[in-house]
Amino acid sequence: MQTIFLRLKYDGSHYRGWQRQNSSPTIQGVLEKALTKLLKQEITIDGSGRTDAGVHALDQCVTFKAHLIMPVENLKFALNKILPIDIYVNEVQIVPNDFHARYSAVGKTYAYKVYTDYERNPFLDRYHFHFPHKLDSESMKSAMAHFIGTYDYRTYMASGSSTKNTTRTIYRFDLDETDESYVFTITGNGFLYNMVRIIVGTVLHVGVGKIAPDQILDIIESKDRNRAKFTPPGNGLYLKNVYYDAQTLNEFVSEMMK
Amino acid sequence: MQTIFLRLKYDGSHYRGWQRQNSSPTIQGVLEKALTKLLKQEITIDGSGRTDAGVHALDQCVTFKAHLIMPVENLKFALNKILPIDIYVNEVQIVPNDFHARYSAVGKTYAYKVYTDYERNPFLDRYHFHFPHKLDSESMKSAMAHFIGTYDYRTYMASGSSTKNTTRTIYRFDLDETDESYVFTITGNGFLYNMVRIIVGTVLHVGVGKIAPDQILDIIESKDRNRAKFTPPGNGLYLKNVYYDAQTLNEFVSEMMK
Repeated sequence: MQTIFLRLKYDGSHYRGWQRQNSSPTIQGVLEKALTKLLKQEITIDGSGRTDAGVHALDQCVTFKAHLIMPVENLKFALNKILPIDIYVNEVQIVPNDFHARYSAVGKTYAYKVYTDYERNPFLDRYHFHFPHKLDSESMKSAMAHFIGTYDYRTYMASGSSTKNTTRTIYRFDLDETDESYVFTITGNGFLYNMVRIIVGTVLHVGVGKIAPDQILDIIESKDRNRAKFTPPGNGLYLKNVYYDAQTLNEFVSEMMK
Repeated sequence: MQTIFLRLKYDGSHYRGWQRQNSSPTIQGVLEKALTKLLKQEITIDGSGRTDAGVHALDQCVTFKAHLIMPVENLKFALNKILPIDIYVNEVQIVPNDFHARYSAVGKTYAYKVYTDYERNPFLDRYHFHFPHKLDSESMKSAMAHFIGTYDYRTYMASGSSTKNTTRTIYRFDLDETDESYVFTITGNGFLYNMVRIIVGTVLHVGVGKIAPDQILDIIESKDRNRAKFTPPGNGLYLKNVYYDAQTLNEFVSEMMK
């Protein structure tokens, strides 16, 4: 048995998220079916994390165990030949047996895209949250700075999650504005369920003036889910990077200081 | 009866083109159904032109006759409420009775998008033609200049078309390069069936060195369909503008001179 590692991109628009389901197409379901067919053995994969319905990935990572019956380069080619148009595997390699897509990860970057035009745009809707309000970038940026650091992020976890340890570290949180959208990019050692979306929801409420930037620490420390109730939809969210190597992560984070 | 004019955008990915069909979803079919429902009368619409399966529109124009049973502003709102996520109406207005989306048009602009990365990108595939080859922009630009003018464009019409008058004027043809793609933008008084795609096919063949720029006139004048056989797919094509007013068209064309 060998341990195989995949990096892949997907447009999540037409999937009920990552996790295998019997009734609806999911990314895990489609990948396992393709791998099982190509490798002629039952394959079960582990992703670096689950993505919800409509959420996209620019760099999702996967590991699985298999008897590799073809050269690893051929597996990449064969997979891309049978995968649907909205999933593409960029890398396939053999990794040490103790490597695990989820447990070996030391950090992750997510992006969240928002457009604020008054009119809906059918070319942006599947890939952005449509939030037709004027946003104040300066106050959003000062709010974002308050999220950097190590906190108990219980306020920023979807209700009903059972995770015990809710302390997470956020290393970096950037805002880029383009002609058509606002792009929030956040890097941390890990994220609770819905944490990125709820954080962006709070920042958008700062952007429209509903919350002041200096209330952020208070909201985090309140550990009161009712103080951060706005969860923007999945279609604006992208899993952008998974880090397995502390040095690469540090280099990315320290770029910020320049 | 009044004549109503609509401007709309659509992501054509999930449609079998413009023209109404019984078996598959089309843009015309979806719009007529929505209008018939809202206006409580059988509505038949005319588009400025038909788009093929997978082709997009940034600015398609439509006219139809109806007894308007609600204010025109409400019709825009009501339509957008029931149309699917990939179609959006930007403008609804009452126009003179002799105005016709197709016959009143004096020119059109189309865009065609191509990306050339070696690896497929699931976020670009529905909106670009994936042509993984190195392109020479300078030779493409000099080829493109040869298309400007009035010619019998029979070579650049899909085989089997029955159009009699195959003379068309191209006013302007631009190439823009972005980080991720090449965007061809072409404006003319009208286009034959598949003409934009076949012209872009020839230009891409120039870009990879299969055809020299100074062969273009020869190919157009040959009136030999076999000399321009490459028709890139519909998913890279966008109907970008329809002009109803010669002055607006002239202003756009003469910008080129600056």
